[in-house]
Amino acid sequence: MKIVTAVAPVNIAVIKYWGKRDEKLILPINDSLSATLSTDVMCAKTTILTSPDLKENKFWLNGKEQSFDNVRLKNCLTEIKKRCNSTLPYINWKIAICSENNFPTAAGLASSAAGYACLVYALAALYEIDGEISDIARLGSGSACRSVYGGWVRWQKGILSSGEDSIARPIASASHWPEMRVLVLVVNDNQKKYGSTIGMNHSVETSTLIRYRSESVIPQRIEEINKAILERNFHKFAEITMKDSNQFHAICLDTYPPCIYMNDVSHAIVNLVHHYNTYKEENKVAYTFDAGPNACIYLLESVLQEFLSIVNYIFPKPMDIKANDYFKGLPLDQTIIKKELMDDLNLTQNNEGVLKYLICTKVGEGPRLLTSSNEHLLQENGLPK
Amino acid sequence: MKIVTAVAPVNIAVIKYWGKRDEKLILPINDSLSATLSTDVMCAKTTILTSPDLKENKFWLNGKEQSFDNVRLKNCLTEIKKRCNSTLPYINWKIAICSENNFPTAAGLASSAAGYACLVYALAALYEIDGEISDIARLGSGSACRSVYGGWVRWQKGILSSGEDSIARPIASASHWPEMRVLVLVVNDNQKKYGSTIGMNHSVETSTLIRYRSESVIPQRIEEINKAILERNFHKFAEITMKDSNQFHAICLDTYPPCIYMNDVSHAIVNLVHHYNTYKEENKVAYTFDAGPNACIYLLESVLQEFLSIVNYIFPKPMDIKANDYFKGLPLDQTIIKKELMDDLNLTQNNEGVLKYLICTKVGEGPRLLTSSNEHLLQENGLPK
Repeated sequence: MKIVTAVAPVNIAVIKYWGKRDEKLILPINDSLSATLSTDVMCAKTTILTSPDLKENKFWLNGKEQSFDNVRLKNCLTEIKKRCNSTLPYINWKIAICSENNFPTAAGLASSAAGYACLVYALAALYEIDGEISDIARLGSGSACRSVYGGWVRWQKGILSSGEDSIARPIASASHWPEMRVLVLVVNDNQKKYGSTIGMNHSVETSTLIRYRSESVIPQRIEEINKAILERNFHKFAEITMKDSNQFHAICLDTYPPCIYMNDVSHAIVNLVHHYNTYKEENKVAYTFDAGPNACIYLLESVLQEFLSIVNYIFPKPMDIKANDYFKGLPLDQTIIKKELMDDLNLTQNNEGVLKYLICTKVGEGPRLLTSSNEHLLQENGLPK
Repeated sequence: MKIVTAVAPVNIAVIKYWGKRDEKLILPINDSLSATLSTDVMCAKTTILTSPDLKENKFWLNGKEQSFDNVRLKNCLTEIKKRCNSTLPYINWKIAICSENNFPTAAGLASSAAGYACLVYALAALYEIDGEISDIARLGSGSACRSVYGGWVRWQKGILSSGEDSIARPIASASHWPEMRVLVLVVNDNQKKYGSTIGMNHSVETSTLIRYRSESVIPQRIEEINKAILERNFHKFAEITMKDSNQFHAICLDTYPPCIYMNDVSHAIVNLVHHYNTYKEENKVAYTFDAGPNACIYLLESVLQEFLSIVNYIFPKPMDIKANDYFKGLPLDQTIIKKELMDDLNLTQNNEGVLKYLICTKVGEGPRLLTSSNEHLLQENGLPK
């Protein structure tokens, strides 16, 4: 019997991945770039066990058994086995996989990226593979390849049809910009979801602007944000981050039928951020939105409390939700309200309960193994604990 | 003393004008195309009086006196006087202008287009000008040049720096497609307005996609919709109309900071239209949105009642608003509800009062003079009646 357990992080792109040139290999039409977030706050955790006693392959996700007959899972597993030493005694044993996220999937925070990064990282440990695995994680979920590394990570689209060169590379470590914080504003929403896989395929098929974006806008933009990150130039970093989030959603709107992820609350947050930056006469805060209405706010620690006080004022916490259930992640002072600042910003207050909750986190390290046996999610018989 | 009174129509673009290459002459970066709507339902009305007894130029709009010191008004007047016979005995007399819209400006229905078309048409009559005046109306408000003609009208962007070739041309008459109807869904909204002049200037300055749209998307798209209109191919007409509305709003979103005109209700209408078209297995309805949240729906008379019944079901009329204040324009049967159709569409009902009211209208003729003296908005002394 062999067992490994790993945790892997979520990542939040500042240059967005949207559109594939190869559906099976998940090869993108443009480079993308993200920060990996601390696993202390949000992570996927996966235990994989292999044993001669297992009768069949099994897979549990967030407490529910899933079919193993999942093409993306199989693609990852096949690729891992291709690369491992074929004389490993346990290579043909069945496996049990148990995976969970420590954050609600309702947060819409690319749980599949953390999940597949974690799966592939654990598989690589199980089958003793060294070297590049971001291209294997990519086969599970495109953006998972970026969660294989900590810090600031660029996914190079690559040009080969094999996909070998479509890999992630760290451009700066987690400690490079230590003051960087991320505030996730989870928006209450009951819209039906336009899945991101379907959405990006429709965009490639129908948007008349997407090729121009991938070929003529992103190449320059990604070099500029790379430079801004290396120079820790927040003003420039924020401008490019916001522009790229908006352009990604512009492409979604240019899709036929359009795929709409942001809602009125998302746009109220956009408006708040621009008002605040104008008030500060410099970009102090940057928003970015993925395929959902939740805002990810990049900001430096020095403005975190002030910006949070505005968010709390404009989007009041419902009285009936406990502070601990509303302010998640790194500790925050939730009470500060600067009355004059609110008057200067002159923004409309929203009703209570417009935001579901907030998560405060920071840039962090890549996946790692947990060696203590009480960390495993599976018992020795291959069933979940 | 000389007095003239004219009415002029609103127009609704299906290929949108967004972005200028010359701010003063109001020269656009792309062609646009619209239908002129019947003046029986919505129109601007303008009376102009000139008399040797007037001491100064005066201007009233919707019952309020305005400053005559308005650069766009002056540009129109200067150009009119350049083109008229300079020996006209009254050419140097002062003038009084009184203008009103018969529809609420709150409808966000490009009242300036109808207003400037009416002003220029009335001025041309007053100063006895024959020939092209769409380029003069353009100096007042870009899209006003399209309201100078009835039916289906294309505004050619032109290439000359003088602007002489940036004129409107009818491509089909009002009677060409007699079944065409337009349903305006006026959305309740309290957002602060991002003015369209500022919006389009910001787009030209900051959007990295707008040039590609104007240079590489529109030229082909406008030929296709021209053809679809001439062939009365509603399916194709609808597809292009919806795609172009979405692309215009995509460009707005790609602007920095983004200018957001559509809200959650607008997107719910978009969703409803796509559901209905999917259900009918053909495009039967097309939406288009200008610089505001209101939907303009193009559809043929044959589906008007059925589509209206869905709108009434999904967006219920508030009980406390009288039907006559809610269903404006051409007469409609407001009561039909097909229960099975609603079940098949499986859409979420909204609260009452999400829509402010509806206007039903059709494609109509261009501006015309009203000769009966009781139509004039001004008394013989140059003051409003």
